[in-house]
Amino acid sequence: MLKVAIVGATGIVGQQAIVSLTNHPWFQITKLAASARSAGKPYAEALREANGASRWWCPQELPPEIAQLTVEEATAFDPTSVDLIFSTLDAGVAKELEPKWARTTPVISTASAFRYEEDTPILVGGVNMDHTALIKVQQERRGWKGFVVPKSNCTISGLVVSLKPVLTHFGVKQVIVTSLQAMSGAGRSPGLSAMDMTENVIPYIPGEEPKVESEPLKILGTFNGQGITNAPFGITATCTRVPVLDGHLVVVFAQTEKTCTPEEVKEVMLDFGADFCRLGLPSSPPQLIAVTDDPFRPQPRMDRDRGDGMTVTVGRLRKDPILENGLKYVCLAHNTKLGAAKGAVQTAEYLVKYYLKWL
Amino acid sequence: MLKVAIVGATGIVGQQAIVSLTNHPWFQITKLAASARSAGKPYAEALREANGASRWWCPQELPPEIAQLTVEEATAFDPTSVDLIFSTLDAGVAKELEPKWARTTPVISTASAFRYEEDTPILVGGVNMDHTALIKVQQERRGWKGFVVPKSNCTISGLVVSLKPVLTHFGVKQVIVTSLQAMSGAGRSPGLSAMDMTENVIPYIPGEEPKVESEPLKILGTFNGQGITNAPFGITATCTRVPVLDGHLVVVFAQTEKTCTPEEVKEVMLDFGADFCRLGLPSSPPQLIAVTDDPFRPQPRMDRDRGDGMTVTVGRLRKDPILENGLKYVCLAHNTKLGAAKGAVQTAEYLVKYYLKWL
Amino acid sequence: MLKVAIVGATGIVGQQAIVSLTNHPWFQITKLAASARSAGKPYAEALREANGASRWWCPQELPPEIAQLTVEEATAFDPTSVDLIFSTLDAGVAKELEPKWARTTPVISTASAFRYEEDTPILVGGVNMDHTALIKVQQERRGWKGFVVPKSNCTISGLVVSLKPVLTHFGVKQVIVTSLQAMSGAGRSPGLSAMDMTENVIPYIPGEEPKVESEPLKILGTFNGQGITNAPFGITATCTRVPVLDGHLVVVFAQTEKTCTPEEVKEVMLDFGADFCRLGLPSSPPQLIAVTDDPFRPQPRMDRDRGDGMTVTVGRLRKDPILENGLKYVCLAHNTKLGAAKGAVQTAEYLVKYYLKWL
Amino acid sequence: MLKVAIVGATGIVGQQAIVSLTNHPWFQITKLAASARSAGKPYAEALREANGASRWWCPQELPPEIAQLTVEEATAFDPTSVDLIFSTLDAGVAKELEPKWARTTPVISTASAFRYEEDTPILVGGVNMDHTALIKVQQERRGWKGFVVPKSNCTISGLVVSLKPVLTHFGVKQVIVTSLQAMSGAGRSPGLSAMDMTENVIPYIPGEEPKVESEPLKILGTFNGQGITNAPFGITATCTRVPVLDGHLVVVFAQTEKTCTPEEVKEVMLDFGADFCRLGLPSSPPQLIAVTDDPFRPQPRMDRDRGDGMTVTVGRLRKDPILENGLKYVCLAHNTKLGAAKGAVQTAEYLVKYYLKWL
Repeated sequence: MLKVAIVGATGIVGQQAIVSLTNHPWFQITKLAASARSAGKPYAEALREANGASRWWCPQELPPEIAQLTVEEATAFDPTSVDLIFSTLDAGVAKELEPKWARTTPVISTASAFRYEEDTPILVGGVNMDHTALIKVQQERRGWKGFVVPKSNCTISGLVVSLKPVLTHFGVKQVIVTSLQAMSGAGRSPGLSAMDMTENVIPYIPGEEPKVESEPLKILGTFNGQGITNAPFGITATCTRVPVLDGHLVVVFAQTEKTCTPEEVKEVMLDFGADFCRLGLPSSPPQLIAVTDDPFRPQPRMDRDRGDGMTVTVGRLRKDPILENGLKYVCLAHNTKLGAAKGAVQTAEYLVKYYLKWL
Repeated sequence: MLKVAIVGATGIVGQQAIVSLTNHPWFQITKLAASARSAGKPYAEALREANGASRWWCPQELPPEIAQLTVEEATAFDPTSVDLIFSTLDAGVAKELEPKWARTTPVISTASAFRYEEDTPILVGGVNMDHTALIKVQQERRGWKGFVVPKSNCTISGLVVSLKPVLTHFGVKQVIVTSLQAMSGAGRSPGLSAMDMTENVIPYIPGEEPKVESEPLKILGTFNGQGITNAPFGITATCTRVPVLDGHLVVVFAQTEKTCTPEEVKEVMLDFGADFCRLGLPSSPPQLIAVTDDPFRPQPRMDRDRGDGMTVTVGRLRKDPILENGLKYVCLAHNTKLGAAKGAVQTAEYLVKYYLKWL
Repeated sequence: MLKVAIVGATGIVGQQAIVSLTNHPWFQITKLAASARSAGKPYAEALREANGASRWWCPQELPPEIAQLTVEEATAFDPTSVDLIFSTLDAGVAKELEPKWARTTPVISTASAFRYEEDTPILVGGVNMDHTALIKVQQERRGWKGFVVPKSNCTISGLVVSLKPVLTHFGVKQVIVTSLQAMSGAGRSPGLSAMDMTENVIPYIPGEEPKVESEPLKILGTFNGQGITNAPFGITATCTRVPVLDGHLVVVFAQTEKTCTPEEVKEVMLDFGADFCRLGLPSSPPQLIAVTDDPFRPQPRMDRDRGDGMTVTVGRLRKDPILENGLKYVCLAHNTKLGAAKGAVQTAEYLVKYYLKWL
Repeated sequence: MLKVAIVGATGIVGQQAIVSLTNHPWFQITKLAASARSAGKPYAEALREANGASRWWCPQELPPEIAQLTVEEATAFDPTSVDLIFSTLDAGVAKELEPKWARTTPVISTASAFRYEEDTPILVGGVNMDHTALIKVQQERRGWKGFVVPKSNCTISGLVVSLKPVLTHFGVKQVIVTSLQAMSGAGRSPGLSAMDMTENVIPYIPGEEPKVESEPLKILGTFNGQGITNAPFGITATCTRVPVLDGHLVVVFAQTEKTCTPEEVKEVMLDFGADFCRLGLPSSPPQLIAVTDDPFRPQPRMDRDRGDGMTVTVGRLRKDPILENGLKYVCLAHNTKLGAAKGAVQTAEYLVKYYLKWL
């Protein structure tokens, strides 16, 4: 078993990482780290508020062996005490601490701090595993024995998975998306106000649209030996928040280079990622994309847990009535599983086996 | 006071028509009609279910003088007993009954039955009052002394109001919309299931997208003496249902003919409809469009009642990063006020004063 | 493997029975039956609506081998074709059909049709297994080789489980309860309207309070050789519906015969049912009652799935400030698992092993 | 017009006070005060967050003349600059500042700081206007020219209004309540988390039950010349939070001294407060209690705005099946109108006219 640490363990993404790693066949959580406020306390106690409430927010029960781990202070954490670090810190702290750890130890991060660095890939399971080669560039340029590999923004997980087979087979000219994003994406400290989110929609998510308009181009780009050449198309987005717990729904209007029918698109989507799934990584689903013919699906609450939260569900595939080579569909991905903690675990699984070759 | 009837009075739109007409300075409800099941009963009793529940669904109290009106059977209703009929029937029944009444009496309808007839205008307050001229064509062609004027689909109310000034000043080339529609649009008998709509989104509304892609082109078209020449651009739509009670939010990506800045668009939107508002119709708001600079607005729950549900709120006006002459914004309209019953009342007010010239 | 049928298979409780029986170690679903409308079609097709929607309402995927089973007509169902029947019919139909099947075959029913028959026990796992003896009375009196054993009303599942150890150790004098019930309890055809249940509470559930005030007295009563002598205390209830998907929360004010402290009550609750759990029935949880010290728990969404929906969570145990020997607490049970389909499966497991002795 | 100040003006209760005072016939807001952070800025600007969002949380538009008032610092506020002060501060700050202002100026407070002082009445419109006499005791004992009169806790508003006529006519022996409280009661900074309140119930509200168990006894008590003698009965409560925006629903099990029928109780409730309503205070409703026969009512969303939020709605009045002289009902009151800001305005109206005799 490889020893792993979760840094940022008291936050909601850290908690979800704990859930994603419970009973994992390769990884064992041996260290938890968080801010000074939590340091020195058993994890369960660090989550306990003055009024008796527990800030353990997952419906899954906190595993007793994790509950009693003593939380260390993130700034003083010794990266050599584990084989692998999952960092679920906020971007600011991540920018400072992750490079220190990466000198000796691989860091898989859900923070955005390193996403836009030229020598850093944003890996999405089954989509761009060839970008793994960029890690070596990062290690050489920075003199690191470890590395930092960040997760993509949670909103685009479903989008890039669904676009990849379209891009491969038909080319993509332009993509117009409206996202209907779940509330869990806004975190828990305190996250969104119930008074704002009850029977309401908020048509703006600060900082989100620029990420949605740029990250997919890097992820869907090509490794050029020293970096990534972005995919050659444009994305425009409006990102909204809807009263849904988990599961980001993205409404897509895409224009392809080549003409294609909805049936052809369905076929390439269903075929997509079969090789990657056959690797049998513990966190991989049986299929990367499910395509539903029920016109009322995908729905966040009904479809987000498909493939235990790692399968993207595409529905309403149809020809656009006015756009040239236009295609309309909606896609759904679980933002805190595929889009965050569990996606990070899957990335770690891939890197441990095929990049680090520790298994 | 003009005597008006509401036919379809027990349904939710009929109820909202009652609310919209309560204390109206020009119109007095003297007749209510509905299906055979309700006929012959006082209205309050017709709404009473076997288990004691009342099917009066509006938070406003049912006015006592309406509560005791005896409901007549719609199929036997005598149109000459009133000056004006508000029809809130389903499309099928409307198609059959509205023409009979129109022989003698003006009919304002929230049904879609006549929307696509060549000799029938779809009037939206302040947007296309010149289409009123088409009513004469309808009356002459059909030999009616009355007429049928239908309301537009509720989803497009906000869209056409917001597009009209853009079309006038800058021209429109193409419009791509995603709607996030409120649950009240699905009616109440029984309407949507709570089990489907709790922390969920349904990405499909049967029959909605074709309407959203075509009706605005007629409403924004030009009267050619015998009919309407559609506006010369294309619309593509994905319509979704979100867990919101009232207020349809529409996410718009528009391309204009002429280059324009968000500031210029804001200005023409704010100016739009000033003449119409100055007519002082009882159901008109002080302004047709409010443009908000708060990036988190419009929100359905916070903005739907602006102008007592008759003002469209536009927000997030910004330049599109990839579309040529591209403009992004969101707009919100109250689907059961501007988009249905109260909009119908406003149309009636306009026609009574400026077409029928009864006041 | 024992062959089982689900009758009422297209309804929501039938669907939950399918989920509860998926991968069951003892039972294999070999027959599905429903109304004439569904008969003759493969199950997945029987669930398909005209507009393409599927009425499969569970987030778990429909198992492919179940999807293709041909649905039989309930009224023509041959009970000898299976070893055991799960009936999830409405009470009216159940009253008529269940006795026919019981002539030859054991019937476990979620309907209320037989609950109040003198020769019929209402079995709740771990609470009153000695009532099993009443089945023989039923079989003899009615000349049945099979039997009918109904599930209790879903609301009282948590209540009777939590009251049993209190009754045993301290006696119960009086119980005053307010229930906050989940929407799934109202079914799905169509169930509650989203317009009624959005940010709202409905303070009445037709027919519920009399059940809550009487069924627990039978379940907590004693087998007297020929029937059940009711437990000797009174219950008064107000039942309300809250906007929660699953999980009935019951607020309890109880008065005991003997004085007891909250700590003593906690202890007897935690100990309760250990023997029953040790039987290791496939659907049994590790503990019947969990008692939480977090004052903000139990919460329906966070605690309903404890013990895979079969553990009752009790919280806020405290002394009442005014009632003599008064005890206050809240308890939560999963209404469609413990309180319905899965509870029925557990009852079947017990009866197959300890009454029928087939295993 | 009397000049009034709102101190705590940027908080949600302060905002609701602004709404309650808009277009008031007697009172004009001339001063706003808040914490140092807001001081010196125009009110609208003080509400503006760094990201452009406005913290004006009411659906009613902020009146322009209020928007431009410069906010003063609460700690430096000059009480002699106004005739009357509405204090919507938190209890801690209120305890310190309200006595300073009361030396010269009447203070109506929504804070709990003074509720339990012996010389301070908790006034509830129509329930205990005779307690007004206690103000003189307060003024004399403390040497104040002004006074502090606090509002009751929001949860009990509906309870005390509904209990008063029962107490008067039949006597009350014991009251057992479960509250289902709206989220707005938890404030807005940030208030409850949307992740906690989505399809969920929280069975605990810190500090609430002791208030619900004690305040009504003072309010329903009798003035004894120097203080209040508490009403001679006991209350026990469990307070829960439900996903409702506004409107606290309270489920009541009451035992009366004298036998009474539900019809008799209905009658005394309907009669209650007629004299008080006839005073015609601007914020008073036409009736204090509405009693509904629809068994599915009152519902928070449908009934909270009755009497513009100042009428209590009682429903489900019925005899208790087990409690001696037992009565069951539910009552609903608007927690931020009757239960907070608007109730405070009504109290001020009463005191200005009948205690201060300024009008």
